[in-house]
Amino acid sequence: MTIDTFDATGVKPSHWNLASVIEQLRVSREATHNIRHQGRVRELPSREALQIIVNGLSAVLFPTHYGRPNLTDESIDYFVGDTLNTTLNRLTEQVRRGLQFSATEEVPDDAVLTQQAHAITREFAANLPGIRALLVSDVHAAFSGDPAATSVAEIMLCYPGTIAILYYRLAHCLHRLGSPFLARLISDIGHSLTGIDIHPGAQIGGSFFIDHGTGVVIGETAILGQRVRLYQHVTLGAKRFPADDQGVLIKGVPRHPVVEDDVVIYAGATILGRITIGAGSTIGGNVWLTQSVAPNSNVSQAQMRND
Amino acid sequence: MTIDTFDATGVKPSHWNLASVIEQLRVSREATHNIRHQGRVRELPSREALQIIVNGLSAVLFPTHYGRPNLTDESIDYFVGDTLNTTLNRLTEQVRRGLQFSATEEVPDDAVLTQQAHAITREFAANLPGIRALLVSDVHAAFSGDPAATSVAEIMLCYPGTIAILYYRLAHCLHRLGSPFLARLISDIGHSLTGIDIHPGAQIGGSFFIDHGTGVVIGETAILGQRVRLYQHVTLGAKRFPADDQGVLIKGVPRHPVVEDDVVIYAGATILGRITIGAGSTIGGNVWLTQSVAPNSNVSQAQMRND
Amino acid sequence: MTIDTFDATGVKPSHWNLASVIEQLRVSREATHNIRHQGRVRELPSREALQIIVNGLSAVLFPTHYGRPNLTDESIDYFVGDTLNTTLNRLTEQVRRGLQFSATEEVPDDAVLTQQAHAITREFAANLPGIRALLVSDVHAAFSGDPAATSVAEIMLCYPGTIAILYYRLAHCLHRLGSPFLARLISDIGHSLTGIDIHPGAQIGGSFFIDHGTGVVIGETAILGQRVRLYQHVTLGAKRFPADDQGVLIKGVPRHPVVEDDVVIYAGATILGRITIGAGSTIGGNVWLTQSVAPNSNVSQAQMRND
Amino acid sequence: MTIDTFDATGVKPSHWNLASVIEQLRVSREATHNIRHQGRVRELPSREALQIIVNGLSAVLFPTHYGRPNLTDESIDYFVGDTLNTTLNRLTEQVRRGLQFSATEEVPDDAVLTQQAHAITREFAANLPGIRALLVSDVHAAFSGDPAATSVAEIMLCYPGTIAILYYRLAHCLHRLGSPFLARLISDIGHSLTGIDIHPGAQIGGSFFIDHGTGVVIGETAILGQRVRLYQHVTLGAKRFPADDQGVLIKGVPRHPVVEDDVVIYAGATILGRITIGAGSTIGGNVWLTQSVAPNSNVSQAQMRND
Amino acid sequence: MTIDTFDATGVKPSHWNLASVIEQLRVSREATHNIRHQGRVRELPSREALQIIVNGLSAVLFPTHYGRPNLTDESIDYFVGDTLNTTLNRLTEQVRRGLQFSATEEVPDDAVLTQQAHAITREFAANLPGIRALLVSDVHAAFSGDPAATSVAEIMLCYPGTIAILYYRLAHCLHRLGSPFLARLISDIGHSLTGIDIHPGAQIGGSFFIDHGTGVVIGETAILGQRVRLYQHVTLGAKRFPADDQGVLIKGVPRHPVVEDDVVIYAGATILGRITIGAGSTIGGNVWLTQSVAPNSNVSQAQMRND
Amino acid sequence: MTIDTFDATGVKPSHWNLASVIEQLRVSREATHNIRHQGRVRELPSREALQIIVNGLSAVLFPTHYGRPNLTDESIDYFVGDTLNTTLNRLTEQVRRGLQFSATEEVPDDAVLTQQAHAITREFAANLPGIRALLVSDVHAAFSGDPAATSVAEIMLCYPGTIAILYYRLAHCLHRLGSPFLARLISDIGHSLTGIDIHPGAQIGGSFFIDHGTGVVIGETAILGQRVRLYQHVTLGAKRFPADDQGVLIKGVPRHPVVEDDVVIYAGATILGRITIGAGSTIGGNVWLTQSVAPNSNVSQAQMRND
Repeated sequence: MTIDTFDATGVKPSHWNLASVIEQLRVSREATHNIRHQGRVRELPSREALQIIVNGLSAVLFPTHYGRPNLTDESIDYFVGDTLNTTLNRLTEQVRRGLQFSATEEVPDDAVLTQQAHAITREFAANLPGIRALLVSDVHAAFSGDPAATSVAEIMLCYPGTIAILYYRLAHCLHRLGSPFLARLISDIGHSLTGIDIHPGAQIGGSFFIDHGTGVVIGETAILGQRVRLYQHVTLGAKRFPADDQGVLIKGVPRHPVVEDDVVIYAGATILGRITIGAGSTIGGNVWLTQSVAPNSNVSQAQMRND
Repeated sequence: MTIDTFDATGVKPSHWNLASVIEQLRVSREATHNIRHQGRVRELPSREALQIIVNGLSAVLFPTHYGRPNLTDESIDYFVGDTLNTTLNRLTEQVRRGLQFSATEEVPDDAVLTQQAHAITREFAANLPGIRALLVSDVHAAFSGDPAATSVAEIMLCYPGTIAILYYRLAHCLHRLGSPFLARLISDIGHSLTGIDIHPGAQIGGSFFIDHGTGVVIGETAILGQRVRLYQHVTLGAKRFPADDQGVLIKGVPRHPVVEDDVVIYAGATILGRITIGAGSTIGGNVWLTQSVAPNSNVSQAQMRND
Repeated sequence: MTIDTFDATGVKPSHWNLASVIEQLRVSREATHNIRHQGRVRELPSREALQIIVNGLSAVLFPTHYGRPNLTDESIDYFVGDTLNTTLNRLTEQVRRGLQFSATEEVPDDAVLTQQAHAITREFAANLPGIRALLVSDVHAAFSGDPAATSVAEIMLCYPGTIAILYYRLAHCLHRLGSPFLARLISDIGHSLTGIDIHPGAQIGGSFFIDHGTGVVIGETAILGQRVRLYQHVTLGAKRFPADDQGVLIKGVPRHPVVEDDVVIYAGATILGRITIGAGSTIGGNVWLTQSVAPNSNVSQAQMRND
Repeated sequence: MTIDTFDATGVKPSHWNLASVIEQLRVSREATHNIRHQGRVRELPSREALQIIVNGLSAVLFPTHYGRPNLTDESIDYFVGDTLNTTLNRLTEQVRRGLQFSATEEVPDDAVLTQQAHAITREFAANLPGIRALLVSDVHAAFSGDPAATSVAEIMLCYPGTIAILYYRLAHCLHRLGSPFLARLISDIGHSLTGIDIHPGAQIGGSFFIDHGTGVVIGETAILGQRVRLYQHVTLGAKRFPADDQGVLIKGVPRHPVVEDDVVIYAGATILGRITIGAGSTIGGNVWLTQSVAPNSNVSQAQMRND
Repeated sequence: MTIDTFDATGVKPSHWNLASVIEQLRVSREATHNIRHQGRVRELPSREALQIIVNGLSAVLFPTHYGRPNLTDESIDYFVGDTLNTTLNRLTEQVRRGLQFSATEEVPDDAVLTQQAHAITREFAANLPGIRALLVSDVHAAFSGDPAATSVAEIMLCYPGTIAILYYRLAHCLHRLGSPFLARLISDIGHSLTGIDIHPGAQIGGSFFIDHGTGVVIGETAILGQRVRLYQHVTLGAKRFPADDQGVLIKGVPRHPVVEDDVVIYAGATILGRITIGAGSTIGGNVWLTQSVAPNSNVSQAQMRND
Repeated sequence: MTIDTFDATGVKPSHWNLASVIEQLRVSREATHNIRHQGRVRELPSREALQIIVNGLSAVLFPTHYGRPNLTDESIDYFVGDTLNTTLNRLTEQVRRGLQFSATEEVPDDAVLTQQAHAITREFAANLPGIRALLVSDVHAAFSGDPAATSVAEIMLCYPGTIAILYYRLAHCLHRLGSPFLARLISDIGHSLTGIDIHPGAQIGGSFFIDHGTGVVIGETAILGQRVRLYQHVTLGAKRFPADDQGVLIKGVPRHPVVEDDVVIYAGATILGRITIGAGSTIGGNVWLTQSVAPNSNVSQAQMRND
């Protein structure tokens, strides 16, 4: 459509030695992708489609905040129903594509993948009311936890933590239902929007609040209890990565912290390894922690030098 | 428009138990929104509209950098005038919506809100030349403060700090004129684009420079003087949140640092509480600071262990 | 097109004292831009165009991951060729604009700039296969370095580090070929998407891996060897900025770290100044380092106080 | 958004004597619009919005043909409900604007217009099932009347007559309910799409079929019975326009033909004036007719000369 | 995306009795579509997709006229190849959908339809060079037949006849290869753009020229030889439609004219029935003709009365 | 952007023998375009850009009808000025492209063409107030000539004749100023929108009114006086085309009718050749006329046979 006008630049087209560059790129591709025979292609899930899908799910869960400004009691369920249906159809296609990457190396049966995609998506839909309940608890935690918050609407529209948790809870559900690739993509979109990086494999209880948020990292096997509160730049990471005899990393081993109920972790704290932060503890800002702490501990950083 | 083609996915539509999911979501909404009677709806401000509005204001303030590439002396004022008019009309609508959330719980009078929205927007327009002057001082501070900067154009187009300060100065003005919800939304858009989180309530003097910027957090009641310079990951935060007898947080209490003129704060420093950083001080990287320091202080972190 | 409907807001247009605001803005512009005579304008490169250009280059380098989902052996080279040609034409125009800012203050000759732009773009095209080879090494480094990674596709689609390095490698090539302004713009787009800030002037060897990534800063004169691995919030920055006798910063002096081969730097470490991190060293999380360390060093932070 | 790239044409901007042209245009406007005082503006209905509205109504009436390809029994009513609600909200705004032009010259009361717009739109919605029934009869008439028609789907998607009648029936309903300006706009959009020009004031019975259609004109006061069939280039027009003593045309006088049930009119026939074509008549191609004909007449053109 | 802002109209949402209208529409649908059991849906071809497909085919056939303005000898085949591949993939999907309507009433096998769609599309691709040759002959006929034509480019960009013939030749090929529904849709898009209505079943030789064109109608079984020239409002139609004993029209019977080589038919002529216009004949403007004429005839209308 | 989702059709990509088809198309192109050496390309004007340009000019001429709904006395000149400037810049580029086709066969000097394009566009801008005055007279003619017209707004928004005359008057001005190719393109866009085909070379006086309009054709050398009124399907065409000794048509010879002041021509009349219709005459519907008629004549068709 607008291609013509876009290309109408002030600089005339030139000769680029296209054939040579294209040839070299083909050789380079074939060196890395020598598996690609018979023109068979695995279609990758689409980041753009997933963004639209998450927007649709957000509108379904909170139609007045993320849907449309002019919904009425008479019309709201039609909006929710139509958006939900459209979004689930779109999600199925992406789930199907994602399953190609979980499947074993041999050619997967398209019909089987489609059936699996339908089942996962249907189960996902059934989980939406439960996800909504968790998100409502998160928003309440933010409202009662931040003195700068003036309304629920502000928390839902202006807090990156809210957005990050929304993306996480949707991604985690897909991860749990057997669509890990899609879950990762949704996570990464949320990360790009908020600067908050929560792996969809992490398990996080209700009433979760992240204030400011930029730079928060929560690893794949982390477990967080109820009413945990985090500030910006908090890392819940792995300390080391166990490798097998050939030096290849072993995947999926529990290696991130367990954070029990009612823990607060202040800005910049780095907590690494499969340690446990006991319930009710407070971890101070910039703390570097690699050992478990008992419940109700209060950990803070060594003093600074002022000269 | 493209709905048809988008939905033409490789996966056939399925049956999703829509009625059951929709019913559960309705019950969940009604539990949280039991206030919503009579179909009355508060329209939320639109993040998308605000993005367009900030783009318009940027173009009005710096038409050759953020407007169009082909403006001439003959045409520039027409562009500025038309963009300003369009943008102010759009802003009024968003201000009006935002005022619904500041208004008391009872049904606000639409005509009164509209009148207020017009007044705020008109006053905002009158402040634009002053905002431009401050932004010019900020850009000059960046040029003289960063050895990597090669031109004013580079600072205006390639520095996230410039964008973050632009969003902050616009948001702060709206905050001051009585549109705090809108101000927060604009702040958060800026945060999402740059990773720099400045609350619109903060007060910041001219010639302000943030280098790199990702992870900077400046709290609601912070006060910064002239010629302050910050690096990435600096936090100017609250230490603790005073609560009332019922444990409810008290909102609006001064709880963030006062940073006087000519202070430099290096990467990763965390400064918490209503303390004062005296004029001319330098705070080193990764410093954790919760007490006031005298003017011209030089604070740095304890040494590392090298083993 | 949609202007009409967009402007059909619930608030009637008002009177904004446009003439006065526009007059003040013009005076403010003329004070800062007194150079602008004779209606001559330097066209700024377009951030939007550069985003489209980087998308095009990504598709050319990795057509099945960043191009289209339905390419076949028969069609892939046509896609690559057409996308490459279109993208190079667009890039030439942006290079030409960027050169206006590198040019000396006197009016540059348009024909000369255009010729230079063609030459730079043609040379850039010739570098693409080499850039691809480096990026392939980076992706392999991620796969072998992160236990959470389950497939190459996941690393290419879901890892912000991959995106940041892709933007960096394209920007660095343009920087090296004499288009520094464009290089900076591309860097900053990558920064905005990923929270990872790599100056295009930095020199970075193959098999480079950034995990999580948010908050990483790599300065203009930094030099990184082969197989370097970084985590979130790592800064490779300058310690101080040498100024000349008038206090004006001297630009371009080497002032950022040299990181040799096979170095790992954990989350939050801040490394400042023209120091050298010897090959094979490990720098622990949150470490603050301003002195060189020998090869195979293991630097970690002082202990925390637990009370 | 794409303004920048669009304007990046190969031709540099020039000096256009803008001030002079703009001044002359303002003088010209003021000469014609001397009524426009006090900045008061009547907002015109939007052709673009009406196109979207008619698309929405078409989808509501025939969701599988004009809506989406993947609707199921479970989802179709949600789609219809949400589309209907959205479309009626949009229509109300356009009806309100249109009423400003029917209103008397004095300033109309906005609240009254809005109330009228709501009432008209609600009544219009109640008429939709009846309109659907008529359209179904029209489609059946096409199927049984054209030997080239192979399916109902073909008639609904590929016959300009179907589209023209759909636009007419919607426009006629609005015309009847008191929104004549909007009705005319909808008619003209239909005319532009199909080349068939039916004034919304015309009264047309069920089972109406127009074959090919280009060039058909049906005037404001025409009355057509059941099962009328027309071919391309048929005019049902006025013969002369009665004027009052000052030579001003008298508006609204019946001046177009009455066509009774079961009449067929072949291509190019021109029928003018308030005459009656009796039931069951056939009017031959290219016939020029200005007098009534009895039921079951068979009118054809004089012979051609073949030399 | 722009839904929010679009719906932000000056009129508040109202109550529309949605449930009642939706219920009535459902009843009406069920009355007409009582075949629709088990949620099975035939997806209709998409008019929007077909428009994009025809644009793609036009660009493939005449890349410098209908493709992009900046193609070079080096790049043109990449553009053609990529556009062709993309367009054929899109076409296959539409062909597949269209085949559902040609299939017998019982549930068609999806795999069989897909295979047929691939075969038809592949055959269609093989016909493109032949179609191009015919279109080149048509353009030459226009250039030599119209004294107002000043260049080939003008004929290709500004003549509705050229567009109509392009749409016809593509549609006719699909019609011949077994995709009649798609062919009709493409025809109707061309009709809507140009006012020229050519049934895809018609057979038309090379060097065909339609001047001005609005209102031309060419029926399903018409046969036109080489070098035929038509003017606006010419009809090549059916005289009567044979019906069977039950009065049902018999489909597919030859009922439109045969026009031999080198015939010219002037504006407004109406030629009806399976008659033959002998080679080299000229038919005058507004002539009404229902009998065959010998080769080299010259038919004109009876004289007018001038009073 | 949406390419991915669009291509995610239900049909897998196939093998199309692309190389063979592309090869044949290349051979076919080279046979017709053997002139194209050295990769030199004449860029064609863009129909899409011209549509945007005409929209811009319409908004400049009638800002409240074709511009925006919310202009005020304070803002209207900024809107007009900015739209005019943008539109003239865009027009210049298209004029420059069009001039390549008027230029002699040898390579035109780009700088010269650009200078000519600037001059033509500047002159065109100076003509806009005069064009506006003519269009105002046309609208008044419609209002007083059609009993169905209820307001000036209706005539400007709902009458295809108004749109066709607007396109004609803009195109004619460009034609007169030396940009005939562009003029033709604008004409043809108007033709496609309205079914009214006016060659930009025709000369038409003020107060011109076309009612209904579909099918009207006005040839290149036609001359129409003041206050002419036409109905649908009127042709003002050429009777025969004089050819030179080689049988090549002679271009530009006066061959269309001269219609003097105050003539009315009813629907379907066909008037051919360089004849003169005397002032004040009335030509009846469907009349076929090839000889001049005296002033104040009243020409009507022979009677029909009624059997």
